[in-house]
Amino acid sequence: MHIHRTIAEIRQFVGQCRAAGQTVGLVPTMGYFHEGHLTLMREAKQKCDVVVVTLYVNPLQFGPKEDLAQYPRDFERDCTMARDVGVDAIFTPLDQEMYPQGFSTFVEVTGLTDILCGQSRPGHFRGVTTVVTKLFNIVAPDQAFFGQKDAQQALVIQRMVRDLNMNLEVVILPTVREHDGLAMSSRNVYLTEEQRRDALVLYRSLCAFRAAVQQGERDAGKLRGMMTDMITTVPGAQPDYVEILAVPDLQPLETLQGGIIAALAVRFGKTRLIDNVIMEV
Amino acid sequence: MHIHRTIAEIRQFVGQCRAAGQTVGLVPTMGYFHEGHLTLMREAKQKCDVVVVTLYVNPLQFGPKEDLAQYPRDFERDCTMARDVGVDAIFTPLDQEMYPQGFSTFVEVTGLTDILCGQSRPGHFRGVTTVVTKLFNIVAPDQAFFGQKDAQQALVIQRMVRDLNMNLEVVILPTVREHDGLAMSSRNVYLTEEQRRDALVLYRSLCAFRAAVQQGERDAGKLRGMMTDMITTVPGAQPDYVEILAVPDLQPLETLQGGIIAALAVRFGKTRLIDNVIMEV
Repeated sequence: MHIHRTIAEIRQFVGQCRAAGQTVGLVPTMGYFHEGHLTLMREAKQKCDVVVVTLYVNPLQFGPKEDLAQYPRDFERDCTMARDVGVDAIFTPLDQEMYPQGFSTFVEVTGLTDILCGQSRPGHFRGVTTVVTKLFNIVAPDQAFFGQKDAQQALVIQRMVRDLNMNLEVVILPTVREHDGLAMSSRNVYLTEEQRRDALVLYRSLCAFRAAVQQGERDAGKLRGMMTDMITTVPGAQPDYVEILAVPDLQPLETLQGGIIAALAVRFGKTRLIDNVIMEV
Repeated sequence: MHIHRTIAEIRQFVGQCRAAGQTVGLVPTMGYFHEGHLTLMREAKQKCDVVVVTLYVNPLQFGPKEDLAQYPRDFERDCTMARDVGVDAIFTPLDQEMYPQGFSTFVEVTGLTDILCGQSRPGHFRGVTTVVTKLFNIVAPDQAFFGQKDAQQALVIQRMVRDLNMNLEVVILPTVREHDGLAMSSRNVYLTEEQRRDALVLYRSLCAFRAAVQQGERDAGKLRGMMTDMITTVPGAQPDYVEILAVPDLQPLETLQGGIIAALAVRFGKTRLIDNVIMEV
């Protein structure tokens, strides 16, 4: 497995692959891999000849009071895990390689980013779409792989790719969960033992949501109230948002119809976790 | 010469060229060609195997009170002129092809776009960088050609290409002028005979600027005052801005040193013309 730190190097590697007629899959990550990341890499390896994983904790998508400095990192472990699932190259640049002196260009999706995590984390999605555009331009993949756990991110990136005519396919894979249902996240390591138990309320309330919808409930207000009640009964859980919206436009709705997402963000102490379920009704 | 109206068609054309090992040059235009455009096309033809000209009056870069509806158009004449200089394909999409329902992604260069034309035309450069990003993604050229007449646009696009790691070379060619020095512009057709004579003050004041600098003047305030005086003595000329700035960062300066640009925007009735000179002192 190749490890490249400069744009010139990874471009050369991908250029050689492409010259040999190989297709390229990209898995953009911030590292500290878990089974969710590995699932994306395995799927990329299934679908493409060559898999490039980018490992970059992008400062542009963190707010000034967020966990950029604390974000968990373990480069050696990540490399071993990526090699074991057949990744061909890791691109892990330094900040000055990605954001040189005078950097001042940003890619922004409007509307879709005003709500949910965009409202809680101003500037977050601008950081995501800017870095992802750069990674797409650097690697020029045929396909790029993202997880549904970050559902809003996935919708924003799909919109960006469509709007800006980026010449690649975005593949979204289902959320990978722990045995007890907690969505895998690099941030789960922040949780105390008690918070880890409390955090199960995200999945539990999404399951209750799904069951209620399957039993015929269509009133968004009622469903939202039910999930909020479940979350607030857990003393350590502070809901950031509990929303039911139409997909892919993330418009509010009163009555469930068509594609819908139930999306949650909940704080446990300083740790903010997100989860969601997407259904067609 | 091929004429394509859909993204799928032009992509197919360029894909075939690329599969045959040909390099591709792109000349993005809003049509109503003059010698400035043709110079870009000829240079593209010199440097690349295949030349694609995009002809699209981009609504996103016009303000609500600007001349979008009046912008001069003559598609048949443009096609003849492009064919005569050896252009291989014209891509001329409809608005709904470029900005489909729900379009909401924008590319923005900050800082550089706050001044000069960016200050006079809010949103203009966001429209330019967004459409140029789309055209770059659609055509995927090796080189893209722009004129120095729109000097700020050229600097903004160069910054965007660098910041977002777009995989192409931006080529900037010198301003092409009428025999009497007026910078060629599709908007020159708006001018009455009298305004056309008055408009020579742009070039005249830039020549005076250059002569003064060559004779040793380094005081930006004095040079700016001299140009402003020359312009305001013409009754029909209303200066929009008269600036002397450092390039490529467009920072203000008091004493000329290094790369500098003198940039003018002047209104003649409803018609706003721009011109500039770039020097190294």
